[in-house]
Amino acid sequence: MNLALFQNENILSQSDERIRVCLKNRQHEHIVKIQKLGPGREIQIGLLNGNMGRGLIVEQDQDSTTIEVSLSSEPPAANPIKLILALPRPLMLKRVLQSAVSMGVKEIHLIHSNKVEKSYWQSPQISDEEIFQQALLGLEQGVDTVLPKISKHLRFRPFVEDQLPELIENHKAYVAHPSANAKSAKACQQDCYLAVGPEGGFTDYEVEKFEQAGMQTLSLGPRILRVETAVPVLLAKLAN
Amino acid sequence: MNLALFQNENILSQSDERIRVCLKNRQHEHIVKIQKLGPGREIQIGLLNGNMGRGLIVEQDQDSTTIEVSLSSEPPAANPIKLILALPRPLMLKRVLQSAVSMGVKEIHLIHSNKVEKSYWQSPQISDEEIFQQALLGLEQGVDTVLPKISKHLRFRPFVEDQLPELIENHKAYVAHPSANAKSAKACQQDCYLAVGPEGGFTDYEVEKFEQAGMQTLSLGPRILRVETAVPVLLAKLAN
Repeated sequence: MNLALFQNENILSQSDERIRVCLKNRQHEHIVKIQKLGPGREIQIGLLNGNMGRGLIVEQDQDSTTIEVSLSSEPPAANPIKLILALPRPLMLKRVLQSAVSMGVKEIHLIHSNKVEKSYWQSPQISDEEIFQQALLGLEQGVDTVLPKISKHLRFRPFVEDQLPELIENHKAYVAHPSANAKSAKACQQDCYLAVGPEGGFTDYEVEKFEQAGMQTLSLGPRILRVETAVPVLLAKLAN
Repeated sequence: MNLALFQNENILSQSDERIRVCLKNRQHEHIVKIQKLGPGREIQIGLLNGNMGRGLIVEQDQDSTTIEVSLSSEPPAANPIKLILALPRPLMLKRVLQSAVSMGVKEIHLIHSNKVEKSYWQSPQISDEEIFQQALLGLEQGVDTVLPKISKHLRFRPFVEDQLPELIENHKAYVAHPSANAKSAKACQQDCYLAVGPEGGFTDYEVEKFEQAGMQTLSLGPRILRVETAVPVLLAKLAN
């Protein structure tokens, strides 16, 4: 937690530029046990979807930490890459979401694909509440306040045929896939869409559908990376 | 397992260019349960520290898969980046080792640092055998056969004062640290050393010691990434 994110429900009082905020549960525990911070100490803090700044811890008891906050700076620029991600298995999803959000990605589409096990969609890890929690952790890691838009698309064809062409209109759009005519990943310097397959990759049929929708294949070379490695690597290469 | 790596102890017989190999335990289970491959099917296979090629599954029983192998191609080029890594907590170490090795890193120094808990060095996860197993998994993921050299340095100062200057002589060498005069990460196009701190970063004293040894600080911008994200990102940016 490099930034403590608070929400409106955490606000105790507000006057001029001073906001008094009360943090409980995970955030309180982290401040006490990991950061070992108490009254009189400063902490980096931000309002969800708002500005960031420094907070002064003014009170602390067993269950909560009260912080006086002044929000003076804007969150960092968004990552220009928007992700289309074949739903990873639940435990990996948590790590991939956190790392993509910590890198500033603001739009993530979780999609079905041939090699995604159908049961993953039933996992409690992909409930809206759980995804929201992972996004918060990613923002707190990456020192950012702007919540990404994360959507779920349980059927491949309706997504790729009906929604994707409109989504990527006027954008560069890539699907990561080692194919003969794949481009190698280079910085795109502008908003673009990137689709990343499941472990085992997209099927040839799926790649063809992405290409029909207007995407180009993009290669990372002969090495095959796990999704949790491929996503940061591709984001690093494309966003530069 | 995108490549099944075998060792000399797996070789049943060898004649001309044909090698007969027997895989058991984890690899056998993976072939049967995940890849669902049996007799008559082909598999990508390589000899540890040797060449790679295709194998034909010729026999399979409950405990083992026998494969007839011909090794025709060389492993991919090594990653030019050599890593110096503050020992991550044990579970994260597994992931970081696997991802770095899957990206072709061939030299990894695990070092102590102020924010590394001393108890981590006693974890079974950092036994030589366990590290070897993680390296194998990384090679099998990244389709490579060349085992990296992974060494452990339990004391910071002797490493940074006595070993590091010699190690990095005639190389570019960077320490990832958000400081005022840090360069931003750009492809180095040649062998170079990269030091990555623990969660919470290197201390100012440690960064100073790295600089005295001849390293330059390197920044990833305002966002703070977890080690498991920062390593692939830095490798991607530096090795390009």
